[in-house]
Amino acid sequence: MDDGIKKENVILIGKKPVSSYAFAVITQFNSGASEVRIKARGNSISRAVDTAEFVRHRLMPDARLNDIQISTEEVSGEKGPLKVSSIEITLVK
Amino acid sequence: MDDGIKKENVILIGKKPVSSYAFAVITQFNSGASEVRIKARGNSISRAVDTAEFVRHRLMPDARLNDIQISTEEVSGEKGPLKVSSIEITLVK
Repeated sequence: MDDGIKKENVILIGKKPVSSYAFAVITQFNSGASEVRIKARGNSISRAVDTAEFVRHRLMPDARLNDIQISTEEVSGEKGPLKVSSIEITLVK
Repeated sequence: MDDGIKKENVILIGKKPVSSYAFAVITQFNSGASEVRIKARGNSISRAVDTAEFVRHRLMPDARLNDIQISTEEVSGEKGPLKVSSIEITLVK
């Protein structure tokens, strides 16, 4: 995957509406990206899936799912480190 | 994948704690399943990822991710059909 050319087309999903992130993905593709990664942690994971589905079914039918990874990340919580699940969905066109 | 032998080892994720679903997955494996599918829709998608991560990192280190699919399903809502995102995570051991 990594051919030496750094690809930093990452959309980090937070609490905004799905459409905001979907348009951010489209903007990345329209700026010449061949691949966009949608990342989310915890409760935002559902919104990451919604974003990927919205893009490929509504906005950009030629976008396709290239890869989906899930993992566990450690974040600092109020009472020390917390483990949260994360997802990374890679779309390509 | 489907070799004629029906595999019905599906855990459908709802609103219960992650541990409930994680133990259901373990129970399926301990009953002889070689593959367990964890399915969820909408807001439960995050919990499906949590369940898969909990199983493979805490309960069953020899379980591994075989496949992750996302899709859009139509469900009946109060005001007619609704489209919701779904995920299916397949664990094998």
